[in-house]
Order: sequence, then structure tokens, then C-alpha cells
Amino acid sequence: MRLHQLKRLFVGTPLPTAQSRHERLSKPTALAVFASDALSSTAYATEEILLVLILAGTAALSYSLPIGVAIAALIAIVVSSYRQTILAYPQGGGAYIVSKDNLGTYPALVAGAALLIDYVLTVAVSVAAGIAAVTSAVPWLFRYRVVLCVAAVAVVAIANLRGIRESGKLFAAPTYLFVVSLFGLIAYGSVGAIFDFLGEAPYQAHPPGLEGIGLFLLLRAFASGCAALTGVEAVSDGVPAFKPPEAHNARVVLAWLGAILITLFLGITYLAYDFGIVPKEHETVVSQLARHVFGGGFLYYEIQFVTMLILLLAANTSFADFPRLAFFLARDRFIPRQFSTQGDRLVFSNGIVILGGLAVVLLLIFKGDTHALIPLYAVGVFVSFTLSQGSMVRRWMRVRGPGWWWRLALNGVGALVTGVVMVTIAVTKFSHGAWIVVLLIPTLVAIFVVVHRHYGEVSRQLSLDDYSPPPPMTNTVLVLVGDLHRGVVHALQYAQTLSPSAKALYVETDPERTRRLEERWGKWGQGLPLIVLTSPYRSLLGPLLEYIDQLQRHGDNHVVTIVLPEFIPARWWQQILHNQTALLIKGTFLFRKNVIVTDVPYHLRH
Amino acid sequence: MRLHQLKRLFVGTPLPTAQSRHERLSKPTALAVFASDALSSTAYATEEILLVLILAGTAALSYSLPIGVAIAALIAIVVSSYRQTILAYPQGGGAYIVSKDNLGTYPALVAGAALLIDYVLTVAVSVAAGIAAVTSAVPWLFRYRVVLCVAAVAVVAIANLRGIRESGKLFAAPTYLFVVSLFGLIAYGSVGAIFDFLGEAPYQAHPPGLEGIGLFLLLRAFASGCAALTGVEAVSDGVPAFKPPEAHNARVVLAWLGAILITLFLGITYLAYDFGIVPKEHETVVSQLARHVFGGGFLYYEIQFVTMLILLLAANTSFADFPRLAFFLARDRFIPRQFSTQGDRLVFSNGIVILGGLAVVLLLIFKGDTHALIPLYAVGVFVSFTLSQGSMVRRWMRVRGPGWWWRLALNGVGALVTGVVMVTIAVTKFSHGAWIVVLLIPTLVAIFVVVHRHYGEVSRQLSLDDYSPPPPMTNTVLVLVGDLHRGVVHALQYAQTLSPSAKALYVETDPERTRRLEERWGKWGQGLPLIVLTSPYRSLLGPLLEYIDQLQRHGDNHVVTIVLPEFIPARWWQQILHNQTALLIKGTFLFRKNVIVTDVPYHLRH
Repeated sequence: MRLHQLKRLFVGTPLPTAQSRHERLSKPTALAVFASDALSSTAYATEEILLVLILAGTAALSYSLPIGVAIAALIAIVVSSYRQTILAYPQGGGAYIVSKDNLGTYPALVAGAALLIDYVLTVAVSVAAGIAAVTSAVPWLFRYRVVLCVAAVAVVAIANLRGIRESGKLFAAPTYLFVVSLFGLIAYGSVGAIFDFLGEAPYQAHPPGLEGIGLFLLLRAFASGCAALTGVEAVSDGVPAFKPPEAHNARVVLAWLGAILITLFLGITYLAYDFGIVPKEHETVVSQLARHVFGGGFLYYEIQFVTMLILLLAANTSFADFPRLAFFLARDRFIPRQFSTQGDRLVFSNGIVILGGLAVVLLLIFKGDTHALIPLYAVGVFVSFTLSQGSMVRRWMRVRGPGWWWRLALNGVGALVTGVVMVTIAVTKFSHGAWIVVLLIPTLVAIFVVVHRHYGEVSRQLSLDDYSPPPPMTNTVLVLVGDLHRGVVHALQYAQTLSPSAKALYVETDPERTRRLEERWGKWGQGLPLIVLTSPYRSLLGPLLEYIDQLQRHGDNHVVTIVLPEFIPARWWQQILHNQTALLIKGTFLFRKNVIVTDVPYHLRH
Repeated sequence: MRLHQLKRLFVGTPLPTAQSRHERLSKPTALAVFASDALSSTAYATEEILLVLILAGTAALSYSLPIGVAIAALIAIVVSSYRQTILAYPQGGGAYIVSKDNLGTYPALVAGAALLIDYVLTVAVSVAAGIAAVTSAVPWLFRYRVVLCVAAVAVVAIANLRGIRESGKLFAAPTYLFVVSLFGLIAYGSVGAIFDFLGEAPYQAHPPGLEGIGLFLLLRAFASGCAALTGVEAVSDGVPAFKPPEAHNARVVLAWLGAILITLFLGITYLAYDFGIVPKEHETVVSQLARHVFGGGFLYYEIQFVTMLILLLAANTSFADFPRLAFFLARDRFIPRQFSTQGDRLVFSNGIVILGGLAVVLLLIFKGDTHALIPLYAVGVFVSFTLSQGSMVRRWMRVRGPGWWWRLALNGVGALVTGVVMVTIAVTKFSHGAWIVVLLIPTLVAIFVVVHRHYGEVSRQLSLDDYSPPPPMTNTVLVLVGDLHRGVVHALQYAQTLSPSAKALYVETDPERTRRLEERWGKWGQGLPLIVLTSPYRSLLGPLLEYIDQLQRHGDNHVVTIVLPEFIPARWWQQILHNQTALLIKGTFLFRKNVIVTDVPYHLRH
């Protein structure tokens, strides 16, 4: 009862099924809803590049410029590629569905596994980076960052259990504030850089590089920066949410998203280089940049605040995506079907709870540290990019609509480039944590296959096709009696309603007690015959099993019903004061065919 | 199945009830069986006295002699007193039973609580001291002492679960070896002391005393030494185990026990003083004494080994005493009745498991350190001594057999002296740990009373006295259907055997599914009518509860049976892949009157 009330407090009252509907989004709102995930990664992508480069000393930081340009080009390619997907899948083309359509089940499962992993990582990374934005501005909160991360996940998860996921208004303000604030920062910073009135960032001593600069390190820096691309696929997943013409509007929004993303990412990367900003443990690069440009006043704090907000929105995106993908996987019977049922508030509660739980586990293991999580991140996204673009290539070759050959070329370039980047990320970050994801993806696929096989087997065994109805069933009703009291009388009466030939069964451990029972049976036995079984080893189950074996030799579709009188104390703790015989009997017969155990509870008052 | 085999491996095959019998013991065997607990305490009693005295510096150690003499006198008094109890209770006079007979329920419960606590402490202290005897001889084992303690408890507990408790032969050899070896040690040591060929023990630096010698410290030393008396009551508890004339033989054995105990205790205390032995952390006093007298050869190791053996036997004694007392308390309904049932091997398994578990917890908390446990020890024993002797005083006043007045005087002195010692122990050791026991005894008594009241209330509510049999019961059988498959067909057939008017119930969440179900119902519905309930909030339980409410307005003794089709996967882990609807429904109706939920399992093959 109290658990029920607690749930109401946090989750709200149930919503009727009829209230299920999808809000249609205008282009500006859709940009806010679908861009938060992609744009928020600019809060940490530059920093992750610098953190790798600095291993070769501060001089190596200048390599961030060419790497930034390469990543910007990659964004342009992926965006162009996904604009083709939107055309082909106006009903929404997530990597799982697109791969299933064009490449078959196994590639789809790989995409599904990769995406599930990356949704969890998106929550963990975004929340960790969001809290880092806060602790950069308020340093004394740094020691509480793990607690803050866990609290943030809890808040987002509860909000989603209440069902906020598709309200565009919620997203619009923080996303546009973030975009405007960062454009302001970049514009004012660039002017300052050009006319040189802002100077260099304060000098920071840094130990000399431990590694020489080389191709592997550069590739690793590039791989770390590829976190900037996560979330770019969101628009093409959500085409049906747009106002008509859906596909057209989605393509426009995706193009805008790409442009903003490239501008922000390159702007931050350039200014960080120009002001000579070096990554620090307790302050993010964006925070250092904003502090240098705006000097720690209101604008600085505003930027930190909206950065946190957009990162929490990014985490929130996964809380819509993960349960939706889980729904598809459960509908296709690759994961437990509990993920396909909607809760009281019309959301997929199980997916939300599992996602929140896994993200908290990750945040605890990696102590809420963005940099520790990054090596695991982006592998999954690029697996899904590659499979998604590859699927499109297959599709254009098959469908051949208007302009198919140049769309094929675009998707082909996309598939090739994202495939190469995927391998680069997996190899360069392998020993830093990517190995976990590389092992986890096939493991998840194997689990999907086992689960699928089980469901198939169950539905085959339960199927009514080619099933000849069994002969009519016969049933022997036995009341298991250990004593004579009101609860037993109740159970005897119940057994009489089930069968006129019901019998009572008593297992004798002490002949004296049998004699006393038999004496009172005439008055209270409700006319049922009493069968006494002897038990030389004081075991209740031995003689009972033997007796039932004998009964079941009779017929083919013959069932034995064991009626168990059980009294239920008024308070739960009193339960332990009574013999757990009923539990033992139920456990014993659970896996035995054609024996049905029925508890007949007799409720005590206090 | 595998758990079952594991149990057989450790515990052995079941024994038939007819094999239950009590071995009758000759006097020498009885001495061995009943003396081990009392005699084993000489392994640590002297050391505990010295450990308190040394707080006032090494010079204060000489006070061990008068304290030893006082304890020896106390032993003589208690032994004489218990010799009277044996006369009055030839059927065995444990403190619980004797107090219940003469002082009433509450004093008996206090005695029961005190004894249960002390049995646990006997196991913990004896095992800790036994392992200390081993680690004194083999010092590198010292760091593993906690593990060794736990292993020793496990071995003794498993042996008792197999049912070794009353085999006299097991006890004879170690007990007599211990007595003979220690007599040898004391005799040879005394000769050496008199003719001065053994010299002083090696000088040990010791920091000067931190406390002045005073009455409180002397009393605390005395209280610690009183651990020597634990186990003296064993003979009077076990009179029926003696060969006839039982009472006479028991009195003779008790006198012998007293004489040996006093000799060993005084001998060790005197020699430790004479050789100037100072307690050390890593070696017991008895070990130092034996090493000094025998010089570390075979005889030294033999003494350490038999000391360990007799201490394990002492622990073993509690494994017979605790379950027996628990049986009496459970029979009188003061503790859960699970303690009154014998297991497969005719032993009270629950008592043995609980005792072993509690002793392990104590050993872990106190890190297997005898000295840390001693302040908790002996309080309970002296509570039971006092109540037991007090009971005898009441009895002699009532019964007045031959020589009653001088037996009354003996028991009166016993009650008075043990009462004074009880208070002394509780006060002087209060802040060192005795407070735990002082609080625990009334807590346990309160639990006993609550449990007793509950059992009384239950049997009153279940009683058939003044019970007018209820009117004949009527029963509505409903099959809860969510789909149509072989398991559902099986359940429908089963419902038909229960009632010709059984109905099927379907809660609609999606009208399309209802339509499909209704289409197939004609062929597979077994002729049962299908009732469809709508559920606007997708809740299964809401409409179901409403429908049952309506049904139950009908009659007085009307029961609703909900038949739940459930398929059971072949492997346990597959269970989590299926909706836990059945569990939810059973949980909901568990506390609801007149609703009976019956699972009809359909077993899948693999």
C-alpha cells in the first residue's frame, strides 16, 4: 500500500490509453528536440582531443586544428548521408530497423546492441560532463560530483517515468540559449583574438610530454574527438514527429543541425588553441574559455548553467531512445518481453529504469569522470553509423528511385568513412576501455539470439496449430491435513466445492496424534474420508510423493489437486513463527507434471 | 536436487524414528562426557585472572593465589549445591525446568535467556581458546586464527548435524588424556619448583601498571576467573543419561569433577605464579607453563594438542545443550516452533545451525580473541546458577524430604554466594562488555513473551471449541485468460473439473486482440463462456478486483477461485523472460478474504 503511494508521488496517476498521441513538431521546435544530444557534445569534444594531444607535451596541442577540421568534414559527410536516409525512411529509420530491412537479422542485432550500449554511455557521459560544467563554476562541489551525477540521473529518470519525453517546449529554451550563448562566446572571443585585447590564458605549468607525437597519438586524439558526432542520427530516427511534409522538414533541420554543430565545434577548438588553453583536472576547457573571454561574471555563469542544462537534455534524449529501441527488440522477441509493455503513464517504464540503473553503475565505477568514460563512447555510435549507411547502399542498389546513383555514392562514402573511423576508434582506444564495448557487442548479440530461440521454442510448444485437444481431464482432490482447526475446516469445505469425492490425507509421525485426530474427525471432518499414511523417517514429502505416484498410474489426463490449509497471520513478521510446510510442498510440486497445489488461506485477525 | 545431494554428503542419510535411543553412561564415561566443558576452562581461567591483575603491574600478579583459592572455594560450594539438585531432579534438572517448577514462568525465562546466551559464548570462547592453544605452539598460524575459529565451529556443527552428540567413546580419550597430561604437568612442575631445578620463566619486560591495585581490580580479576565454573551444571542437567542408580552415580561423578577441576585450576595458578609467568599476546599462559616445564619437546606439543581437543569438546557440549533448551522453549511456545522439530538425523537441526551461526558472528566481531569475549561470558551462567539454587531453596521449603533443612542450608548458601558473584561479575565487567548480556537477557525475555502471546492468540482463533460450523460453501471458478495456447486449454479443462459453471475472464487492453481471441474461442474455449472486461488504464488488476467485488456481494460463505494458466519453462533462468503476471495476482489476493488463486502449470520441455 505504501509502496503504491510512493510510486504515485513520484510517477503520478495513471493515464488512460486514449491519451496516447504524438505531438507534431515545427522545424524550430524539432531542431531544439533533436539537436540537444549532438550539440551538447561540443561541451567536451575539444577537451578530449586536447587531453590526448597533451600526452606529447603542450606544443602538440596545435594539432587540435587539423584534427578539428577533419572531424568537421566527417560531420558534413555523415549529415549528408543521413539526409538520404530520411528520404527513404520517412516513417523513421533507426539503425536497427534500417539494417533489418536491408542487411538482415544479424547486422540489425549488432546495430541494436551497439546502440543500447551507446545510449547508456550517452547518459553517463552527458551527466558527467554536465556536472563537470557545474563543478568548474563552483569548485567546492567537485568532491560531491559522484553524488551529483547519481542525483541528476535519478531526476531525469523520474521525469521520464512521469512521461515528459515529447514535450518540445521543455527543449526549446535551453537548446536555443546554449546555441546563442556559445555563438556569443565564439563571436566575442574571435573579435578579442583578432584585435588581441583578451591576451593569452594564464600560463599553466605542465609536465613535458611523455609520448612523442606520432600517427597513433593523432589518430587517438581524432577518435576521442569523434564523440562530437554522437546524436547526429537523432533527426533521421524521428522523422514522423515532424509536421508535414515530414521528410522535407527533417532534411532542412538536419542540415541546420550540421551547420550549427560544425560552427560551435570548430569555434571552440580554434579559440582554445588561440588562447593557449590547457586542460585541467578541476575545470573544463569550455569553462576556462568562457572565463577567459567573459572574465568570470554573469555571462560566464550563464554559459556554465546552459551547458549543464543541454547536457542533461542530451541524457534525457537517451531516455526516449533506449526504451523505444528496447520496445522494437522486445517486439521482435530478442529481449525479455517486459520491455514491450507500457506503464501507467504510457511510457516504457522497464526500459527507463534499466537505463537509469546502468548509467548509475557506470558513473559509480568511473567515479563520474567524463575522460574515463570517453574511451568506451562512440564505438557503438560508429558501428550503427556504418551499418545504417551500408544498409542504404544496399537499398539504393535494390530500389533505384530517382537520382539513386548519386544518393548511393553519398551513402557509400558515408559507410566507408564511418567504417574506417569505427575501426580507428576501436583500435586506438582499445586498451583504454574500448575493449569492453568490443566484447560486449557480440555478447549482447548472443544473448539476443538465445532469448529469441527460447521465445520461438515456447510459442512452438504452446501453439494450437496441429494440436489435437486432449481427452477430458479427471481430477482427484486431496486435502493435506496436519491438525484440526478452523483453517482446516475451511479448506475441507473448499475441497467439497471442488469435488464430491474429495479426500483428506494425513501423514503420521506419531500414532498417538493420529488417534486423537481420528477421534475428532467425525465431528469436524465435513464427511470427507481421512487417509492416513505412515512415515518412518518423519518426512512429510516421502509418503505423499509415493501416494501421488500410485494415483497417477490411473489415467492419462489425470490431475491431482493438493489443497493446503494455510493460516495467514495479520502481521508479516508473524509468518516466520510458523512452519513453512506450505512453501516446501509448493516448491516440491512446482516442477511435477499434473499436480496442482492450491493454498486455502484462513485469515487471522491480529 | 543438487542442494539435496550436498546435504546428504555432509549430514548423511535420514535415520528412522525408531532408532532414537539414549545411550546409558557408566561413571567413567559420564565423567568424560560431562566434565569436558568444566575442565576445559582451566585452559584460560588463570590467564584471565593474570590479565586483569597485570593492569596494576607485574607485582600485582601474586594476588592470583588468594583469588584462585576463593574461586576454588566457590567451585566447592556450587558442586555441593548441585549435588542436592540431582537428588531432587533425577529426571534432569536444567535451570529452565527447575525455575519453572519452583519460581514460575518469568524466572524460568530469565534462566532460559541467560543460558541460551551462555551456550553461544561457550562455543565462541572455547573455540577461540582452542585455536589459541594451537597458535601458541605454531606461531605462524596466528594470523589465520579467525579463519581457523570459523572452520572449527563449522566442523563441530556439521558433526552435530550428523548426530554424534551422545557417543561417550568420542569424549573419553581426549578428556582423560587432558586430565592425565595436566596432572603430569602440575606434578612434574611442582617437583621442579620445590627442588628448584626448573628456574624462573625467561624475564619479560612489561610496562609498569597503569592502575593501582584496589578492591575493584581484585574483584574484576576474581570475576574473570569465574569462567572456570562454566559447565559445572552439566552433570545435574544430564542425570537420566547415567546407568542406574542414576542419581547416586551422578552425585559421585559430580564430586569427582569438582575435585579434579579444583586441583587443575589451583595447580596451574600456583605454578604460573611460582615460575613468574606473565601473559603474552601470542602465547597462552598454559603454553608458556608447559614450555617452561617440558622445554618445548613432544610433551609440550601433546599438551597443546589435548588442550585444543578438550576445548573443541566443550564447544561440542553446547551443540547438545542449546538445541535441547531451544526444544523446551519451543515446546512451551516461547520461541518459533521450528526449534521443536527433529531433522532427518534425529537432531534438532535448526538449533544447531543457529548456534553455529551466532558463534561464528561473535568470533568474527571479536576477531577470535578469547580475552575480548571473556567479559561477556559467565554472566549468564551465574544468573542460571542463582536461579537454579534459589529454586531448590523454594523446593526444600515446600517438599521437606528427609534431611531437608540441611540441604536447604546448602542450596541457600549456594544461591547467596552465586547471587553475590553474579552481581560482582555484572558490575566489574559491565563497561568491558557485560552490559551487552545485561541488556540482552531482558530483550530475549520480552521476545519470548511476545512470541508466546502470538501462539496463544493463533490457537485461540483457530480453536474449534465454541465454533459453529459455517454454512456450506459456494464457489465461483474463473479462468484468467490473456491469450489462447496449450497452457490455457489445459487450465480451461482443469477449471471444468472444478465446476460445471466455470467461466473464462479476459481483461481487454486492445479491442483488436479481443476480436481475434473471440474468433478462436469457439474452437478452443472448451465450452466455457468468455467474459471480457475493459480496462481504460491498461491495468489488469483494476477491472479484475471490481468484478470480484461484485461477485462477492452475493453470499456469505462464497469463495471465488481464480485459475491462472501458467507455463513453466524447463530452465529456471528462462522464468525471467516471461511476464510476472501470476506473481502479481497472487500477491494481490494473498491478503484478500475468500479469494483463492490456483496456478495451473503447463510444463515446457526444454
